[in-house]
Amino acid sequence: MRVTVSRKAHFNAAHRLHRADWDEAQNAAIFGKCANEHYHGHNYELIVHVTGTIDPETGYVIDMKVLRDLIKSEVEDALDHKNLNIQVPEFKSLIPTAENIVVVIYNKLKSHLNTDQDLEVELYETPRNFVKYTGP
Amino acid sequence: MRVTVSRKAHFNAAHRLHRADWDEAQNAAIFGKCANEHYHGHNYELIVHVTGTIDPETGYVIDMKVLRDLIKSEVEDALDHKNLNIQVPEFKSLIPTAENIVVVIYNKLKSHLNTDQDLEVELYETPRNFVKYTGP
Amino acid sequence: MRVTVSRKAHFNAAHRLHRADWDEAQNAAIFGKCANEHYHGHNYELIVHVTGTIDPETGYVIDMKVLRDLIKSEVEDALDHKNLNIQVPEFKSLIPTAENIVVVIYNKLKSHLNTDQDLEVELYETPRNFVKYTGP
Amino acid sequence: MRVTVSRKAHFNAAHRLHRADWDEAQNAAIFGKCANEHYHGHNYELIVHVTGTIDPETGYVIDMKVLRDLIKSEVEDALDHKNLNIQVPEFKSLIPTAENIVVVIYNKLKSHLNTDQDLEVELYETPRNFVKYTGP
Amino acid sequence: MRVTVSRKAHFNAAHRLHRADWDEAQNAAIFGKCANEHYHGHNYELIVHVTGTIDPETGYVIDMKVLRDLIKSEVEDALDHKNLNIQVPEFKSLIPTAENIVVVIYNKLKSHLNTDQDLEVELYETPRNFVKYTGP
Amino acid sequence: MRVTVSRKAHFNAAHRLHRADWDEAQNAAIFGKCANEHYHGHNYELIVHVTGTIDPETGYVIDMKVLRDLIKSEVEDALDHKNLNIQVPEFKSLIPTAENIVVVIYNKLKSHLNTDQDLEVELYETPRNFVKYTGP
Repeated sequence: MRVTVSRKAHFNAAHRLHRADWDEAQNAAIFGKCANEHYHGHNYELIVHVTGTIDPETGYVIDMKVLRDLIKSEVEDALDHKNLNIQVPEFKSLIPTAENIVVVIYNKLKSHLNTDQDLEVELYETPRNFVKYTGP
Repeated sequence: MRVTVSRKAHFNAAHRLHRADWDEAQNAAIFGKCANEHYHGHNYELIVHVTGTIDPETGYVIDMKVLRDLIKSEVEDALDHKNLNIQVPEFKSLIPTAENIVVVIYNKLKSHLNTDQDLEVELYETPRNFVKYTGP
Repeated sequence: MRVTVSRKAHFNAAHRLHRADWDEAQNAAIFGKCANEHYHGHNYELIVHVTGTIDPETGYVIDMKVLRDLIKSEVEDALDHKNLNIQVPEFKSLIPTAENIVVVIYNKLKSHLNTDQDLEVELYETPRNFVKYTGP
Repeated sequence: MRVTVSRKAHFNAAHRLHRADWDEAQNAAIFGKCANEHYHGHNYELIVHVTGTIDPETGYVIDMKVLRDLIKSEVEDALDHKNLNIQVPEFKSLIPTAENIVVVIYNKLKSHLNTDQDLEVELYETPRNFVKYTGP
Repeated sequence: MRVTVSRKAHFNAAHRLHRADWDEAQNAAIFGKCANEHYHGHNYELIVHVTGTIDPETGYVIDMKVLRDLIKSEVEDALDHKNLNIQVPEFKSLIPTAENIVVVIYNKLKSHLNTDQDLEVELYETPRNFVKYTGP
Repeated sequence: MRVTVSRKAHFNAAHRLHRADWDEAQNAAIFGKCANEHYHGHNYELIVHVTGTIDPETGYVIDMKVLRDLIKSEVEDALDHKNLNIQVPEFKSLIPTAENIVVVIYNKLKSHLNTDQDLEVELYETPRNFVKYTGP
């Protein structure tokens, strides 16, 4: 009996989409306003889904408080109120698109779960644009 | 051509998380504030997803009015404005965690659907915590 | 230049609507399912609005972190995961309707604000039912 | 590394559910108020999900601006502020239930995607009723 | 001690914006796509706010169940699944803009309230466009 | 008969809260993580409310399309995907707190309205923190 437990969280960050090996015209053509050299930002809304079996003793798949604390220590503390391009090591050589951010978050969380628990991560960059990653 | 039809509903209930075979210290350690002996409560938001083939005559997978009435008779009438621990038989010997509640709701609904219809049930305990069950 | 600063918070609680000086028939006639002797509960969503002048030095009417901490200490710590009828002194002799709860919350917060700051409190009992109080 | 990219859009339309080969009693029995001969309408909310591999050069699965423009030209321009029964060719001989609309939208979009991209379309007819189609 | 009690409701309807005494060019210039002769439609979301004093015996300003039933009989039964232009008498000679609809709803409800209760009506035509009327 | 017409819009931006005439310790004490020298950002959600009389000929207080275009030209074009501190002239010497931003937006819009129309502007910095300004 496998159930999925989900928890919402959020963080605010600045970023820009830009390749140093492209000239400005090419960056503007591909990334548009997102290439702004002075950055812009988002309220990222995050949903973390963990699927596993219910522990018959507690009735929990995973304690929500444990999941909440894991998201805080691994994701919020690392990304909240940060400039993703400058202050988050994973994006030193990786463009912080929503797609790349959601993979980075997945990788930060996965190793902390039991091996028989499945992980899915959704990330809202705006209320209308969002991405999802369920692992390789 | 299989399509999923989804319907939202809701109910309000009181509950507590607690094992009679544990002492208070162990209950508090595992269930925290949720073990409060005088109960607390939630506005549970429910989403029922039914997947099946479109009836070419009506254009329906399942009539939404039929689905709405099924949710009312099987779930809302049984759980709304109730104390789950005391007044709902399924939780006499089962801790009413969100995980266990979603499985109970799934089982209440499944037998009323056609055998070729798939069921998935989502249950929001709060706007930030929710669970999903797609069957055994 | 007066601006209103608003902050959302939430708490979960159990309650029932019931008068000890009425018989069960009268309680049922007026309060319906809300009179259930074993309680039911809600995810209460709270919005606190503080109106005042912008401090020209900080650009703040009130520091959101200060407002968040005030709501936590005065409201969440007092009401979250509680049975309002049994465990919250203000409701020993006051029926915990949404109307009465919002007045209680207003009174808990008002004395902590500057005298030239106006307070308005909104309380959602469910996503479809809510109340607002702006003081006497 | 496959990631799902999702984009929300919306359109407003009138429709009715009705079969010309049924008499009014049968239409009323099956479709209820939705059979009203003078039509009624909805704010349809649409979520388009595209799953594919991340382009290592841009960090995109699909450029959101490209996806937004595709939804506009294929869906919004065809359906927004229209009477679905009268003004949209696909529904000349197909009842515009949510189930049939979501399949029509899927078919309008699918041919514009790369063959290795998966498509899923969700359509909210109201905030409480919605459907999803992931292809044949 | 005056408190505002609010209740959400909704109805779906078709309408068009059009003046018979204008030619099509003028209707198109002012009303754009909303002038479509075959109608379009919306999920109208309605919020009714009633302000009054708390009854010390019940703790209610107005019983939510009474307010819900009043909205149903006066507004939902009159407007839901209707073509506003054709089937709702108030719009025989009044353009069903959101502004005019909210005034009509206010007038339908006002006479049913106590004279010392204030009424405010909000109407969402779409999630991004809405109107409010607090009386003459 | 005065009615309020409201329109939602949004923009994304980077900012930081910081006074050049304070040392870093004082900036950190007052502005916390918001003082981060590399900026962070938000999805700002904006609600513009215009109150006026209904034009009996059109049924409009203000044409929503006119209001939408005004918000785009005055607010979105000026602030969207910008660094507020560096790229928006109003914040060269004004800290871009939510309070100050809402006043700037109010002033950008007010002169474009009729003198008998009232303006109110709400700005959500996050889904839980927001401000409102109704003029001097």
